[in-house]
Amino acid sequence: MTVVYDRVALIGLGLIASSMFWAIKRGNVAREVTGYARSDETRQTAREIGLCDRVCDSAAEAAEGADLVVLCVPVGVMGQVAAEIAPALKPGATLSDVGSVKAAVIEAVQPELPDNVHFIPAHPLAGTEHSGPRSGFAELFDNRWCLLVPNEDTDPEALANLRNFWEQLGSNVDEMDADHHDLVLAVTSHAPHLIAYTMVGVADDLRRVTDSEVIKYSAAGFRDFTRIAASDPTMWRDVFLSNKTATLEILGRFTEELFALQRAIRRGDGDQLHDYFTRTRAIRRGIIEAGQDTDAPNFGRGGRKG
Amino acid sequence: MTVVYDRVALIGLGLIASSMFWAIKRGNVAREVTGYARSDETRQTAREIGLCDRVCDSAAEAAEGADLVVLCVPVGVMGQVAAEIAPALKPGATLSDVGSVKAAVIEAVQPELPDNVHFIPAHPLAGTEHSGPRSGFAELFDNRWCLLVPNEDTDPEALANLRNFWEQLGSNVDEMDADHHDLVLAVTSHAPHLIAYTMVGVADDLRRVTDSEVIKYSAAGFRDFTRIAASDPTMWRDVFLSNKTATLEILGRFTEELFALQRAIRRGDGDQLHDYFTRTRAIRRGIIEAGQDTDAPNFGRGGRKG
Repeated sequence: MTVVYDRVALIGLGLIASSMFWAIKRGNVAREVTGYARSDETRQTAREIGLCDRVCDSAAEAAEGADLVVLCVPVGVMGQVAAEIAPALKPGATLSDVGSVKAAVIEAVQPELPDNVHFIPAHPLAGTEHSGPRSGFAELFDNRWCLLVPNEDTDPEALANLRNFWEQLGSNVDEMDADHHDLVLAVTSHAPHLIAYTMVGVADDLRRVTDSEVIKYSAAGFRDFTRIAASDPTMWRDVFLSNKTATLEILGRFTEELFALQRAIRRGDGDQLHDYFTRTRAIRRGIIEAGQDTDAPNFGRGGRKG
Repeated sequence: MTVVYDRVALIGLGLIASSMFWAIKRGNVAREVTGYARSDETRQTAREIGLCDRVCDSAAEAAEGADLVVLCVPVGVMGQVAAEIAPALKPGATLSDVGSVKAAVIEAVQPELPDNVHFIPAHPLAGTEHSGPRSGFAELFDNRWCLLVPNEDTDPEALANLRNFWEQLGSNVDEMDADHHDLVLAVTSHAPHLIAYTMVGVADDLRRVTDSEVIKYSAAGFRDFTRIAASDPTMWRDVFLSNKTATLEILGRFTEELFALQRAIRRGDGDQLHDYFTRTRAIRRGIIEAGQDTDAPNFGRGGRKG
């Protein structure tokens, strides 16, 4: 219950920004929150549901006078939005973002900024399959990681404030450099998303199995893929295009391993398959022990069995 | 609350059999349930926790006199277990199974059986990441599909009884021929499982990203993969080896599509990616509308976002 910033501006009002707003209000983390979204409809919705204390009609107006400005727009337009708000930024303000990719965002945003603004990229590892201003909720960041990406020139006080802000929103905070962030996320998120999109696309394409069969009998692994593959298309297009190198590297390794397992299946090498499947169980146990998931029986969602 | 069979025998006492037992007791679907497991330890556990009315020391003893015998063992040993119990089967009894593959099970089991036994393969589409006699619970099959695989010679009354049995256990029941079952499951379950195992294996192998990073920051897609990839190694080895043709066909299509998307990323073709990701959303909506999953925000498990 500490006010960390007097005024926070949220640029872009989708799942992450709307959840940030409700979490800011829950914890009284800022005195005023301004907001802006490019579409009239989103701004209208925000005003209807009370999302932001003040919804502005331009990004610059929302950013003006704010102590913290957070870019919550797709990674592909971060640079353009930064250019729009740069003249309005208060000297000494902190600019941050919530993009899933960091090196490309830094490259696009940093050149647009005046020297008297602290730019500290960030990435909260939280989300759902839903998008838009109505999808947010205050608990989204609770006990989730938020990764901050400072560099050697980052002002320690500005960094401490941003850390405090995310902690007040419920997150655990870690720091990481941009390239390592992009590699870690390529492994834990970007490659898995592309793989899930692909598998769902294959199912949709296969004319010998009807869509209704895929839908009815998806109680087993595939259903998790469909949840992943329902995420926002614009956001994910931008993620893949802007984390190209790391994503393609991981997908290359993935394909190599998949071919090895396909070959084991074709040759009937049961030992190789069994050893592989036994090894992957250990990672799952690690995740449960780290408190990042639960192993409670999954009544509502049924099954993993084949 | 209808007794469908006087005595049911469960051969193999893992997740599925133990859930069947508790669901049978919940609905009073059989008057007596016998059970058998190959390992002393599992039989001992079953006796301790009251799993089965009578735990027997051989499969034949458990099967003897039963009206319904259900093989709940890995697909790779179904034929061998069928041979063991064949001499003990009561004339007119029904033999079924719960294997994730159907053509290979029929090929292995049918030749072992006397003519006066009704063999009707089945596959309940339900499960969790857990295995063993302590992992079962009565609700596992509620509102999940159970696929029965009769042929043109199947006795209608025996089929009606087995359908009634699974409905009393909470399932929705459908019928399908064996080859089509194996193709549908290759799409909705077998290929997704192999893909998830592979991706988790890649993460574990990548020395530039530590296991602890993979574990801490897995709040996004990858975590669902680890749940899938924690399933029982023996069961899954047997599934892939016995549904080889369909699984390899689907994996071939998957790889082809994945290469096309990788190429779009490499070339920066955002439209192709966006179109693809938009299409896969529709399948997800279908699954939610069909009542096979919920779109409630996923508080406990966090996120899908990158």
